Amino acid sequence: MIIVLRPDVTERQVDHVLERIAELGLRPHVSRGERRTIIGVIGDEDKLRAEPLSAIEGVEQVLPILKPFKLASREFHKEDSIVQVGKVKIGGGHLAMIAGPCAVEGAEILDTIAKEVKAAGANILRGGAFKPRTSPYSFQGMGEEGLKILRSAGDRHDMPVVTEVMDPRQVDLVNRHADMFQIGARNMQNFDLLREVGQTKKPVLLKRGMSATVKDLLMSAEYILAEGNKQVVLCERGVRSFEDSTRNMFDLSAVPNVKGQSHLPIIADPSHATGRRDLIPAMARAAVAAGADGVHVEVHSCPEKALSDGPQALLPKQYASLMNDLRRLAEVVGKTIS
Amino acid sequence: MIIVLRPDVTERQVDHVLERIAELGLRPHVSRGERRTIIGVIGDEDKLRAEPLSAIEGVEQVLPILKPFKLASREFHKEDSIVQVGKVKIGGGHLAMIAGPCAVEGAEILDTIAKEVKAAGANILRGGAFKPRTSPYSFQGMGEEGLKILRSAGDRHDMPVVTEVMDPRQVDLVNRHADMFQIGARNMQNFDLLREVGQTKKPVLLKRGMSATVKDLLMSAEYILAEGNKQVVLCERGVRSFEDSTRNMFDLSAVPNVKGQSHLPIIADPSHATGRRDLIPAMARAAVAAGADGVHVEVHSCPEKALSDGPQALLPKQYASLMNDLRRLAEVVGKTIS
Amino acid sequence: MIIVLRPDVTERQVDHVLERIAELGLRPHVSRGERRTIIGVIGDEDKLRAEPLSAIEGVEQVLPILKPFKLASREFHKEDSIVQVGKVKIGGGHLAMIAGPCAVEGAEILDTIAKEVKAAGANILRGGAFKPRTSPYSFQGMGEEGLKILRSAGDRHDMPVVTEVMDPRQVDLVNRHADMFQIGARNMQNFDLLREVGQTKKPVLLKRGMSATVKDLLMSAEYILAEGNKQVVLCERGVRSFEDSTRNMFDLSAVPNVKGQSHLPIIADPSHATGRRDLIPAMARAAVAAGADGVHVEVHSCPEKALSDGPQALLPKQYASLMNDLRRLAEVVGKTIS
Amino acid sequence: MIIVLRPDVTERQVDHVLERIAELGLRPHVSRGERRTIIGVIGDEDKLRAEPLSAIEGVEQVLPILKPFKLASREFHKEDSIVQVGKVKIGGGHLAMIAGPCAVEGAEILDTIAKEVKAAGANILRGGAFKPRTSPYSFQGMGEEGLKILRSAGDRHDMPVVTEVMDPRQVDLVNRHADMFQIGARNMQNFDLLREVGQTKKPVLLKRGMSATVKDLLMSAEYILAEGNKQVVLCERGVRSFEDSTRNMFDLSAVPNVKGQSHLPIIADPSHATGRRDLIPAMARAAVAAGADGVHVEVHSCPEKALSDGPQALLPKQYASLMNDLRRLAEVVGKTIS
Repeated sequence: MIIVLRPDVTERQVDHVLERIAELGLRPHVSRGERRTIIGVIGDEDKLRAEPLSAIEGVEQVLPILKPFKLASREFHKEDSIVQVGKVKIGGGHLAMIAGPCAVEGAEILDTIAKEVKAAGANILRGGAFKPRTSPYSFQGMGEEGLKILRSAGDRHDMPVVTEVMDPRQVDLVNRHADMFQIGARNMQNFDLLREVGQTKKPVLLKRGMSATVKDLLMSAEYILAEGNKQVVLCERGVRSFEDSTRNMFDLSAVPNVKGQSHLPIIADPSHATGRRDLIPAMARAAVAAGADGVHVEVHSCPEKALSDGPQALLPKQYASLMNDLRRLAEVVGKTIS
Repeated sequence: MIIVLRPDVTERQVDHVLERIAELGLRPHVSRGERRTIIGVIGDEDKLRAEPLSAIEGVEQVLPILKPFKLASREFHKEDSIVQVGKVKIGGGHLAMIAGPCAVEGAEILDTIAKEVKAAGANILRGGAFKPRTSPYSFQGMGEEGLKILRSAGDRHDMPVVTEVMDPRQVDLVNRHADMFQIGARNMQNFDLLREVGQTKKPVLLKRGMSATVKDLLMSAEYILAEGNKQVVLCERGVRSFEDSTRNMFDLSAVPNVKGQSHLPIIADPSHATGRRDLIPAMARAAVAAGADGVHVEVHSCPEKALSDGPQALLPKQYASLMNDLRRLAEVVGKTIS
Repeated sequence: MIIVLRPDVTERQVDHVLERIAELGLRPHVSRGERRTIIGVIGDEDKLRAEPLSAIEGVEQVLPILKPFKLASREFHKEDSIVQVGKVKIGGGHLAMIAGPCAVEGAEILDTIAKEVKAAGANILRGGAFKPRTSPYSFQGMGEEGLKILRSAGDRHDMPVVTEVMDPRQVDLVNRHADMFQIGARNMQNFDLLREVGQTKKPVLLKRGMSATVKDLLMSAEYILAEGNKQVVLCERGVRSFEDSTRNMFDLSAVPNVKGQSHLPIIADPSHATGRRDLIPAMARAAVAAGADGVHVEVHSCPEKALSDGPQALLPKQYASLMNDLRRLAEVVGKTIS
Repeated sequence: MIIVLRPDVTERQVDHVLERIAELGLRPHVSRGERRTIIGVIGDEDKLRAEPLSAIEGVEQVLPILKPFKLASREFHKEDSIVQVGKVKIGGGHLAMIAGPCAVEGAEILDTIAKEVKAAGANILRGGAFKPRTSPYSFQGMGEEGLKILRSAGDRHDMPVVTEVMDPRQVDLVNRHADMFQIGARNMQNFDLLREVGQTKKPVLLKRGMSATVKDLLMSAEYILAEGNKQVVLCERGVRSFEDSTRNMFDLSAVPNVKGQSHLPIIADPSHATGRRDLIPAMARAAVAAGADGVHVEVHSCPEKALSDGPQALLPKQYASLMNDLRRLAEVVGKTIS
């Protein structure tokens, strides 16, 4: 931690800062320059982080040196983590191909879609039973019935299933039916929910919040890891921006950025990131080329009748064509789709 | 609703769109221009909203005409709503002056702060017992004990109290101790939580999410209103932006913007919006001048020992000086502080 | 300057960094912590700024300590600067009230508007003769003829005039006709243009770029100051954001933020910042309350026939009413309108 | 164009809008719904665009139906344009591999770099002689001497050269020495400069502004095309965002987004987009997979001594390794590097 003092700091203020550091059992190093005095602090940076040193009179800025996450950090865990969802591996060279409709809408339609995405090469089935919707008047999901339909479709087509959980009170229920929890973008900093899924043993797909930095995303993963659940897969799904021709801005550089800092797998979701069916295939290809550990795509056999997010779903035949491209790209980057 | 068709749309596709509209019991008006055909649809726009018309082949874009919120809309409720928190009125010319520490840290310190802000003219006491923190290793709040301390300080100094609720499972507990729920920025789209506070009769302070548009904020208010709780006060507290010298970007124009569209009161929080003590007084003055129904300011008698957000807290004497300015400004804009 | 080394840095890499610092004639201080080694460098930070130290192997990050601007900095010039435009003072308690149409469209209409804004209390007349337009097919301004019309209207109504200059080749021409140059948001980093106006003796109104930080704005002012022209007035006019109901996001906190760091005056432009006539009065009031040194408002006597930006212009009677409010607010904050 | 009227619009206001439309020689279609009256206007949308209809009393919003660009639009030019720079083709399946240092710093160092990138497979050499720098105290480029060095290095290694032009007064000079103009992000809306390069016959590399939407980028291309120069190549280079661990946010979805709307080639610049050497290779691969018509990468043989942007330059051996990957990816997506 580096503490930069104001040009007009008094000696009394300097002494006061030094006392506060000493109280924490840390060692300060003072450097006096022509225009600023700075204090470097050596020792447990976490102790300092909790202290509002920048609130002290005479302090201009406080610059942290260490990253605030630990369990998620590659600094303490060099090798890529591999997360196992049913028989499917994610990370360490294994690509997750997650596909399915935005929402579970009925047994028959889900069965059709599951069959098609399985045939195309998807290895995990998705479908929402609890849907976070901007409007209270929109379809909110089928709830428990939706979970059962999803489970049954997954079993029939031999795919593990992932579905969103929005409320800590739903965690037990979802845990009984699904192979992987999804935490949606809107809940990335719903800390009670993170703790709750952290107390299960089940893999968690943690989506980046709409205005979360990469560091924020890793801090949210840290919440889950700190509860003892090591099975976390991150997901880049676009962030809010001024660009008005796409639903979100797909920050694909988050993939190599996360990989440099963390051992956790990270996949990409071009469906939510772009919100436009015409852009999904190109961006799914880009995601694999950028090193993502998988791709999450919405597929619907009749998007114009989808109860949620139809315009961003691929048709099954488009998905099959995309999967052909992704297999070739996976080969080029040295990855496999199990 | 206006449906714009692609330049290469086929007659069959046009017919298909018209059939879908007819199925919903709505009336289409087709206009054929030189370069585009457009279809205006008259009738209940909500029916169409639920339909993914833009997923139909041949459709270029779908433009909604009506706003998606109703209960929050000024179109259906012309007069300003007044929300009552204990004896304090918010809206319709009455200003809420909410002040207190970021977190409840102990009975004694809170008592000191409460006494000072009351003397300065604050009319509602704030203090967090459940704290949403980016890091799992930061202080997470005193929980139920904090609620009791807050209640007791409010009673002693005759101020209603507001405190954050983060988890639907905490709603009953917080309801027993506080006069107003606060929904924090991170939970603005925690829809289960919104529904839960919507089922109480207690006022709700709903803070704008870090990447929420004004429309999103009003849609979240709609969730609470739709459950039957009409006592909603909105709060502008800054949004995420590229500017790196302030914690957030204070979108103060949201105040008159909301007032044009909605009858709900809206207050401003310059503490979280700027994250900098030196900027709070100027922005609190600006908020009152812009027409806000109140100002939410963090005050701490020893910011450098605050367990949370010390750097953005005013000292009690700074708050007292600010309140002097705000009283004069309130007069200029024709408002009163009860 | 603080140089943070990677956890796996080698001794050879550390030595290499130290050599580079020594080559620049600066003194390094090395602190070895448990998890990181850091090097503090004392001396002329500008020398280091020019060096790509973060490109050296083994360096994790480089943290500057000092601000990169000097002439614009309050650190070296404590008192508020006062800029004089004709007889009008800006800064140091003097408010500029700049008003007029977006574009000069003709002598008669400008004369009408000038008369009305003068009567309402405006002290500087604005009007564009060269217009930066997103589309090549939009009205691009009247050019030299527009400058003459503006000059003449200013003279007739005894107001100095400000107008935009977009191209270094126009600087001489605009210099002959106007009392103040305006550099528009799109040209805030048109460095050749900044240098060119910096070589005149005429005041410059420098508008913040649509994605410029406050630091970027001050660095652009530094370009002008470094050429010898000290007469710079900054202008906050909104930045790009995800909010889609206003043209830009009005970052009003830039006003006290700049005032803390710089001695230069800063005014606010709620017309461009919001792009909505209904929001301008509230935000103009907020600007004065926040401490701005003036307000820039577009006024047009027939906005629906304006050749540019009609929807964001106030009617003369609305402007007169606003000026009444601003005079009362100026009094509260201890400022005068000359 | 669709004009939506306010719920409280009067008949007189409706008539006034209809008169204005009739004055323009256009045909209005009025549809009266339960909650809003809307007017569809058929005919030349450009006429309406110039009219500030939204400034008329009673008008709630004006929704354009057609895109505001024409010459850049795929609607009027179905096939991909191919731009020729020296012997190198860009677009229509041909990939531009542009490489070189940020700035020209001297003949010897540029020769070394040119030789290495040529050997690795680059087909166009870049290097800045005029540098837009945030600070007036940073290295501003070698000017004309730099242009000569660049020309000579290009000739020696048989590569066409591209270099930035910042000022309309430099266009002739740069035209004499370079094979392609670069318009940098800061000048994307320097309209006088766009017109000036539009009047030459030389290819232009137009970089997206830091806060420009995809539509803004295409409108700026329209400025060049409208002057008669059809040789425009677009470049995605990242936009400003809240993410603070990368220099910009790389909006790679702009590549397929532009390709859907425009026939112009678009390349990607992962160096400026990320500002981090460690992220460049992954994002360059992603760009080719997303369908970009080329990749622009900064390469320097000694980044730590680069006078500009060293930290975002690849070493020559890193570039060679990247080019191996890009060749394999080009094959997968059916493109060739000439």
